[in-house]
Amino acid sequence: MIAVVGSGLVGRGWAIVFARAGCTVRLWDADPEQATRAIRGIEAELDGLAELGLAGDGPPPEVLGRISVASTLDAALDGAAHVQECTPEILETKQAVFAQLDAAAAQDTVLASSTSGIRASLFSESLTGRARCLVAHPLNPPHLIPLVELVPAPWTDPAVVDRTRALMEGVGQATVTLKKEVPGFVVNRLQGALLHEAFRLVQDDVADVADVDAAVASGLGLRWSFMGPFETIDLNAPGGIADYVARYGELYLDLARDGGPPRPWDPHLARALETDRRKQLPASRLGERARWRDRRLALLAAHKLRHASDHDI
Amino acid sequence: MIAVVGSGLVGRGWAIVFARAGCTVRLWDADPEQATRAIRGIEAELDGLAELGLAGDGPPPEVLGRISVASTLDAALDGAAHVQECTPEILETKQAVFAQLDAAAAQDTVLASSTSGIRASLFSESLTGRARCLVAHPLNPPHLIPLVELVPAPWTDPAVVDRTRALMEGVGQATVTLKKEVPGFVVNRLQGALLHEAFRLVQDDVADVADVDAAVASGLGLRWSFMGPFETIDLNAPGGIADYVARYGELYLDLARDGGPPRPWDPHLARALETDRRKQLPASRLGERARWRDRRLALLAAHKLRHASDHDI
Repeated sequence: MIAVVGSGLVGRGWAIVFARAGCTVRLWDADPEQATRAIRGIEAELDGLAELGLAGDGPPPEVLGRISVASTLDAALDGAAHVQECTPEILETKQAVFAQLDAAAAQDTVLASSTSGIRASLFSESLTGRARCLVAHPLNPPHLIPLVELVPAPWTDPAVVDRTRALMEGVGQATVTLKKEVPGFVVNRLQGALLHEAFRLVQDDVADVADVDAAVASGLGLRWSFMGPFETIDLNAPGGIADYVARYGELYLDLARDGGPPRPWDPHLARALETDRRKQLPASRLGERARWRDRRLALLAAHKLRHASDHDI
Repeated sequence: MIAVVGSGLVGRGWAIVFARAGCTVRLWDADPEQATRAIRGIEAELDGLAELGLAGDGPPPEVLGRISVASTLDAALDGAAHVQECTPEILETKQAVFAQLDAAAAQDTVLASSTSGIRASLFSESLTGRARCLVAHPLNPPHLIPLVELVPAPWTDPAVVDRTRALMEGVGQATVTLKKEVPGFVVNRLQGALLHEAFRLVQDDVADVADVDAAVASGLGLRWSFMGPFETIDLNAPGGIADYVARYGELYLDLARDGGPPRPWDPHLARALETDRRKQLPASRLGERARWRDRRLALLAAHKLRHASDHDI
């Protein structure tokens, strides 16, 4: 049994992830109306997913039937092996919620936060059960992008990390396990590195916003949708990755040095980017485009599922 | 009529790009046997592409019929509107080949190099026709990854850039046009930024090679296969990209500063990466895996083609 605490978009996505894999899910929200809305949202989402083969084995009503709204936090936690916390990204909120969870959950229940940036050490230090707390950060939405970052605090029990990884992989997610807690974890550090270079290229008037986007969306991003950066370069030199480093390492070092130290994303640049993006997509259509993105992610997930083992070696 | 000069993997890919779009292609290689082998390679490739709807409108023999091997460079250039140069990545070679091309091609023929890193200013400066020279750098293979970087030298005629962009977009490629010549162009600067962070995460023992790869291949890379980094963050804050910068700009700056100055990829790290990758994939299977990669790229290209206009807004 899985307890999902917080029923916004992230909580809804997690409920789908666990329920479509056959787990019983109890959803709890401090705002009971939000939880009720969440169930209706999940119901609608499951129909679309089922059409693409992404709603698990059973029919959508069966998957939906595994998700219930708990009327109290205690009821949600009763018998839960794993709690996936999905409350707002505010340190004080995380601290208060984790104190509540640690006080109420059975001793062997794992307490995992979906936070994208707040380290587990910041909200678990003073808790009796701090060894069972960790971050399990999904990308959004978790039911369409499988990756979860597992980030232990210095005091998290390694067995808790192992159990969480086994659970996540068991329900079809992919994991990256951090061996220590670092700011930004892995995903946002990688994304940040790419963003800094993208910002610099526009600021230095090397290329337009839309062109930098095309360089990724029609270029680099294609390989990266099924191979990571290391495997990519391992296959891009005849002798593998060591050969690649020997051939191009110095060149890449020059490029990195040439960029100079990290620059703040100043308000002037932010305004220029905003103006540019709004020409491509008016603010009034941001929501519509986010739905388009999620539809494309769902189509891609179905595509990857279909070809996951094709010619795999 | 398009002349493709050099018939290795890049030249073959370009011949397919142009021929499947209906252009007549003349292939020339200093080694005539290599050119003959190229035709057989293209024939085999076209059959696989046709099954996925990636070989253009006509049947493969019709597409193949548009490609011929020229017995001399003059014959290849005769009547060519565009030359796509694909010879080895050696500065002296590029200089010699471009001198030959500039001497032999009609005045209004555009001379484009496929080089991934040699700036056009380095091989065109002394040529009479230097204003018609530029870099048109594809990702590999060009018939499966549509992106082409157009990089003018300081003296390249803007009309030549425009004409090349129109040609490339006309045959179904996507373009990024650099407004000035910078080392690494755009694609390798973006890739380098991500690689530097990936190397750092492994070197600092934050995460394993396979886990960093998973962070991209099952996470970040999914969105990036159809949206660039700017559009991604534009949709990741309620108020668009300016809102995103206001919310997270300082955090990303801290992460970038936290990484410290660019580090060389030292031989010790390269050996560790090589050892790690060879456990995942023995050296004897690198070629097989590269074919798997190309198969996945072809499947993804077909997928993107199918959904390009789906729900597009």
